[in-house]
Amino acid sequence: MVTKINLAEKFGRFADQWSPKIVADLNDSHVKLAKVQGEFVWHSHADEDELFLVIQGELTIELRDGQVTLGPGELVVIPKGVEHRPVAREEVQLVLIEPKGIKHTGDVVSDLTVHEYARI
Amino acid sequence: MVTKINLAEKFGRFADQWSPKIVADLNDSHVKLAKVQGEFVWHSHADEDELFLVIQGELTIELRDGQVTLGPGELVVIPKGVEHRPVAREEVQLVLIEPKGIKHTGDVVSDLTVHEYARI
Repeated sequence: MVTKINLAEKFGRFADQWSPKIVADLNDSHVKLAKVQGEFVWHSHADEDELFLVIQGELTIELRDGQVTLGPGELVVIPKGVEHRPVAREEVQLVLIEPKGIKHTGDVVSDLTVHEYARI
Repeated sequence: MVTKINLAEKFGRFADQWSPKIVADLNDSHVKLAKVQGEFVWHSHADEDELFLVIQGELTIELRDGQVTLGPGELVVIPKGVEHRPVAREEVQLVLIEPKGIKHTGDVVSDLTVHEYARI
């Protein structure tokens, strides 16, 4: 079964922030959509690279030695082991691609930690 | 080294069609950009799922039992083993995410087969 995914339509299905939703399986990874606003927690993923692609809004990813700011049509891969903290002044819509089973807060457990990702 | 990738800027760096360019490593996969127009070859990938995200234009992916047509902001994952043929009436800009080492024409070798992907 091959079904196309319209990102705008999928983003219309949820409103909660910092709670990535799975939209597709891709080999050992999930494709997820998230809405984020405010400051996330500093964290890293020991074994997983993580892709962020911004669809709407402006996302800053703070790093220990700098930062990158992404607008629509811009992406970045945060390599495994690199500490980072996403920050968004206004709501951002983004696509995440990362290995199945990843904790989006890495080894840090916070109030924002999602223990099971919903599928939309 | 964490460097953001602006898709429009990267698409401006090449003009050749059906010749995906690597823009990032993501775990065991590559993130690639491609410009395509016309009809590709029927093929499948025995072991690899393949993600297509359309940035510009309209891409039809023919399947043996139907087809999907993607516009900007739409994506599809073609699961491993599923025969498919991309077709674009006008030039399409797309993001591909697929395991490193994949042959974009699968087991089929044609004039379109790229044996080594450039990195931009």
